Amino acid sequence: MRYLMTFSYDGTNYNGYQKQPKTKTIQEVIEKSLTKINSNNQVIIHASGRTDSKVHAVNQKAHFDLNSDIEPYKIKKSLNKLLPDDIYIKTIEIVDSNFHARFDVIKKEYIYKINIGEYNPIDVNYILQYNKSLDIELMKKAIKLFEGEHNFKSFTKTSDEKNDYIRTIYKTDISLEKDIITITFVGSGFLRYMVRNMVGILIEIGSLKKNLTEISKLFEIKDRRESGITAKPNGLYLKNVYYE
Amino acid sequence: MRYLMTFSYDGTNYNGYQKQPKTKTIQEVIEKSLTKINSNNQVIIHASGRTDSKVHAVNQKAHFDLNSDIEPYKIKKSLNKLLPDDIYIKTIEIVDSNFHARFDVIKKEYIYKINIGEYNPIDVNYILQYNKSLDIELMKKAIKLFEGEHNFKSFTKTSDEKNDYIRTIYKTDISLEKDIITITFVGSGFLRYMVRNMVGILIEIGSLKKNLTEISKLFEIKDRRESGITAKPNGLYLKNVYYE
Repeated sequence: MRYLMTFSYDGTNYNGYQKQPKTKTIQEVIEKSLTKINSNNQVIIHASGRTDSKVHAVNQKAHFDLNSDIEPYKIKKSLNKLLPDDIYIKTIEIVDSNFHARFDVIKKEYIYKINIGEYNPIDVNYILQYNKSLDIELMKKAIKLFEGEHNFKSFTKTSDEKNDYIRTIYKTDISLEKDIITITFVGSGFLRYMVRNMVGILIEIGSLKKNLTEISKLFEIKDRRESGITAKPNGLYLKNVYYE
Repeated sequence: MRYLMTFSYDGTNYNGYQKQPKTKTIQEVIEKSLTKINSNNQVIIHASGRTDSKVHAVNQKAHFDLNSDIEPYKIKKSLNKLLPDDIYIKTIEIVDSNFHARFDVIKKEYIYKINIGEYNPIDVNYILQYNKSLDIELMKKAIKLFEGEHNFKSFTKTSDEKNDYIRTIYKTDISLEKDIITITFVGSGFLRYMVRNMVGILIEIGSLKKNLTEISKLFEIKDRRESGITAKPNGLYLKNVYYE
């Protein structure tokens, strides 16, 4: 039986989503608990994609298969009992055996939070502490330039060699509430570091260190090394993953 | 020279404010840094009061003396450089040498946050995850009963023997925003666990486990053992401390 689960996590104390040897990851912790529920037969979970160290998720999605068909609400209950406080399974549903949580994604939403007010030690793992003013009107103009289909090679990790750097951004938004800027990107998919690199240049534009024209220039030159700063991971949230 | 500082902290990774042997506390971490700034002559800080393990502060206050008179903004800058991410000095000012951060307090404000919506692993150290509905109108009626001068012996730690359990609550408030209840208490002073015990009974009333009349009964019997639950520390914030 194939199941799809929606889950949220605080990424602060994890070395990212994806399993790797000798370090605590979200995937490893969930798989260990699911394996227990599956009579100690190993369960592998397939997420919509990885999130980097210290990045949070509000609605991450992953599918997995179990030998026997346990009712979804029972798996949810047992799993949440076994999991630590900072990971929570929101829903589990049965899906078609062809469904794939990564390959079937049609769009994803990420948000990024920035505090332009006074430093707040209570939010340090959850909101980028920029603590200086930013020209939000200028950033609102800038973010629109990311919308549509572009080659995002200048906005991914330098060492990530891929065949395809084309992605489509469907929707963007910037809002301000009580000194907290929330930046939203909805897109067909995101390359490694892509959101943090887009946020990085938006911060440079908002702080008048770079010009609006920089963005189209970067789309043209397709070289990360010419690009700007990578915003810290701790203000980033995978907000939603969409399927057909 | 005597200085008064205002500071905020995330209490998650500390064993409370007050210094004690063999464990990390807010006071110890700040004193170590201040001592460095004071040419390694030991500095003791005197706060408005302690906060318990995992309790946060938005505006805690403490005074301290230095041998030489360093300008306040210079102390602030050096101190914030030395301190970890989760403690932040907001302001430092010079005060009269008779000023005392604890004895001169005229009132304090605490807030407590409760999530009555879905469990959120990202807020688990900052908002009580109650995750069930509460009758807020009833709680609003109940909290008014705490206002005024009362003997709070039923609302403090059982083992805390004091001469005086009389405290005055000047103002209370309960508000709801996006499934988060914020409870506010402004009072002349608060006994150990007093806010968390008042919140505990408010939760019991809001969940219809106890009756409104319980509060006046507890004021009369003056015995903590007859009282209700103590709300967890992680939803509690010392919000403000007021002097003349």
